[in-house]
Amino acid sequence: MAHHIPKLVDAIAASYREIGGINHIQGPNLPSRRTIETILLDLEALIFPGFREQELIEEHDLRFVLVEKVSRLCRTLTTEIQKSLCFEKRLHDSRQASSAASSQQDMHDCREIAEGYSMKLIEDIPAIRRMVQLDVEAAFAGDPAAKSTEEVILSYPGVEAIITHRIAHQLWQQQVPLIPRIMSEIVHGKTGIDIHPGAEIGESFFIDHATGVVIGETTRIGRQVKIYQGVTLGALSVKKGKANQKRHPTIEDNVTIYSGATILGGDTVIGEGAIIGGNVWITSSVPPGSKIYNLPSDYIRRNQHNEYLPDFQI
Amino acid sequence: MAHHIPKLVDAIAASYREIGGINHIQGPNLPSRRTIETILLDLEALIFPGFREQELIEEHDLRFVLVEKVSRLCRTLTTEIQKSLCFEKRLHDSRQASSAASSQQDMHDCREIAEGYSMKLIEDIPAIRRMVQLDVEAAFAGDPAAKSTEEVILSYPGVEAIITHRIAHQLWQQQVPLIPRIMSEIVHGKTGIDIHPGAEIGESFFIDHATGVVIGETTRIGRQVKIYQGVTLGALSVKKGKANQKRHPTIEDNVTIYSGATILGGDTVIGEGAIIGGNVWITSSVPPGSKIYNLPSDYIRRNQHNEYLPDFQI
Amino acid sequence: MAHHIPKLVDAIAASYREIGGINHIQGPNLPSRRTIETILLDLEALIFPGFREQELIEEHDLRFVLVEKVSRLCRTLTTEIQKSLCFEKRLHDSRQASSAASSQQDMHDCREIAEGYSMKLIEDIPAIRRMVQLDVEAAFAGDPAAKSTEEVILSYPGVEAIITHRIAHQLWQQQVPLIPRIMSEIVHGKTGIDIHPGAEIGESFFIDHATGVVIGETTRIGRQVKIYQGVTLGALSVKKGKANQKRHPTIEDNVTIYSGATILGGDTVIGEGAIIGGNVWITSSVPPGSKIYNLPSDYIRRNQHNEYLPDFQI
Repeated sequence: MAHHIPKLVDAIAASYREIGGINHIQGPNLPSRRTIETILLDLEALIFPGFREQELIEEHDLRFVLVEKVSRLCRTLTTEIQKSLCFEKRLHDSRQASSAASSQQDMHDCREIAEGYSMKLIEDIPAIRRMVQLDVEAAFAGDPAAKSTEEVILSYPGVEAIITHRIAHQLWQQQVPLIPRIMSEIVHGKTGIDIHPGAEIGESFFIDHATGVVIGETTRIGRQVKIYQGVTLGALSVKKGKANQKRHPTIEDNVTIYSGATILGGDTVIGEGAIIGGNVWITSSVPPGSKIYNLPSDYIRRNQHNEYLPDFQI
Repeated sequence: MAHHIPKLVDAIAASYREIGGINHIQGPNLPSRRTIETILLDLEALIFPGFREQELIEEHDLRFVLVEKVSRLCRTLTTEIQKSLCFEKRLHDSRQASSAASSQQDMHDCREIAEGYSMKLIEDIPAIRRMVQLDVEAAFAGDPAAKSTEEVILSYPGVEAIITHRIAHQLWQQQVPLIPRIMSEIVHGKTGIDIHPGAEIGESFFIDHATGVVIGETTRIGRQVKIYQGVTLGALSVKKGKANQKRHPTIEDNVTIYSGATILGGDTVIGEGAIIGGNVWITSSVPPGSKIYNLPSDYIRRNQHNEYLPDFQI
Repeated sequence: MAHHIPKLVDAIAASYREIGGINHIQGPNLPSRRTIETILLDLEALIFPGFREQELIEEHDLRFVLVEKVSRLCRTLTTEIQKSLCFEKRLHDSRQASSAASSQQDMHDCREIAEGYSMKLIEDIPAIRRMVQLDVEAAFAGDPAAKSTEEVILSYPGVEAIITHRIAHQLWQQQVPLIPRIMSEIVHGKTGIDIHPGAEIGESFFIDHATGVVIGETTRIGRQVKIYQGVTLGALSVKKGKANQKRHPTIEDNVTIYSGATILGGDTVIGEGAIIGGNVWITSSVPPGSKIYNLPSDYIRRNQHNEYLPDFQI
């Protein structure tokens, strides 16, 4: 079989020349998904010290551990952000010449801007910790099955998703390209929760059971909102030209949305304190304090002898 | 950028002192999620010898391999259970002083109890294997696309979830804190199936396609039950005060529940042999042998010229 | 605790002898899921050179990198396919004697056939790249939130799922046992998208948001089809005897299917250009160009004082 390898290699190399478009062999040097996974783990370990490590951190070692982690983050985060900025520059300069190598000057400029962005994110870690603590408390208060906040931090996918979102959203607000979206898809893969980094989410947010939740780019969510598995906050239109409009709903404070509900449209506002029942389908606004439940659907019911049971009540 | 690191470190260290509550720097030494992942892999390899390894196991090596795996499990499992017991002891002693270091005596006591729990789990491996074999057979029988039981063991997420559940539920019954829930969330992340370790599940259980299934803490499921993707067995009320009540449904023997169905409430009983159709929403009991299907919903139908088609039948 | 280990090992070894059926200690030597994960990463790196690596690939190194990757793939892929062919041979020879060691002649025959299959897959990489490039373009065109095709390749789970499917389906068409299904379940675990390797999927296919999609074994999908999270293309009957019939629907060109829709049955055809709205439930054919939407369900609506609101419109 070994003598066929040159021929196989030729065919693949030819395909890189001919098909093009999807291959970046030289030049672009895109952000690495694996490195961004490591960055997220380091950020999580700074946000929850002692939770993600396998080793115990002694008080007298804390400063050493912090210096090590913050230094590594400065370095890795800056490099990945630099790559994403260089990528975007090339993309804007010329979509045609996107494989041209970047100039030294561009690389240098991107490095400086990247340092600023990554400094800003690390400076914001205390603020992010404050938000995340409220999210953890909301999860503990909102789930009767939760026995302690430690259990929530160690095991709840909804908490992992909101930590990542608060980090990714900070980078999104700074207009860092590519990386926020890669971060949100990393945690989507781990938890089944798909929150676009552009979504604005207020304090004390809790997603229970997690799998299948979708929250679109221009969604706005207030404080103390609780949502369940399979909820979609989505768009009514997916036309490419509408990319810069508000396409996703606004959810005001203290709203609860039960599993499988779908709320669509940029003008749709779910008023403060509303409760949206399971599987409800909503495409227009709902006033504050409303409770919206589906009426039980009509069933076809038969007994074990396959006889139709018209009066059977469930 | 390097000269900013001390300032960044100061801010994060200050946040640990000020915000508190969510950080465990010293003392608690919580169970490690990564170690528990390794424990689950070792347990799976004992349950399915030769399936999870990359190397072939020769018959004459079997005992050596078993001694190695069982010894490692005794050690790692005991250490993690000890940590979880010490954590719970501190939590009960004083929720306020939760960062106080544990006494040597406590550590010693927890170690002894942990040894007992982990021995009991390893003793139960043959019984767990017997249950899991029935689950594999149920999966093979229940899916026309399954070509062999080996395919089922190697690739079905529903099988991976039920193995983990049978392990986590054994630890839950022994009242081991934290670890059962961490185990269930590890497999939730891998499969999209969220089974609370408290749920009681009978023999020959099969979940097909898997993603989005939620089974709550006080659910009881009989034998030969089959469920599909997106099924929720959940609670009607999520009040924290109801944590000790039966909040989730009872599913009797030989019930089939199709994709996306939602069954809620601690008093809801789905009687023996019932069939629950896709997307059905149920909040009260159903007698044995019933078949419950949604009537087709009303549609708005238009043709390609956007004309309304009132008589169009689907 | 250490002195209990021999007793624990005895009990587990006895369980292997007594329960049987689910353990492969010797002989079968099944394909390794971990090796197949590595094979998929190598194939993805050949399809998207420069995207999956952490290091930059220089133009002058390209051929070296290609020879290395193709050689490794020839070796690992052939070994895993050989194992799967030997497994199937034993399964057919005798389901009873399934633990009997394979003869040297069988091993040799399987090796030769495996070399042919793995050559054929590597030869098809340029054709797979052509298909995948169209899928990437369809994703970019179909999602207003997508900023560049690079973002799509780096982060979209729908793209990862369709790449894996196009690889797994090629092996499925060659009738390679076990491996296609293991591949599809690896990507199911990562993305929440469950596409059976038998499904036939045309050019320019896009799945947005991904989680919870199920596409069955005998589904046929045309070109330019777009589907959203939670869509099921499934079977009406799951009787084991129907394994060789077409049990899953046919979706013609240019169809869009919104989130949570369920389309069931082997005779169900969704005609060209049809639009299927969110949560629609369909078990029979729909003519070309139709638009099918659920009528809004009836709601129970109450205001904040829990008063029933009969005229409230949403």
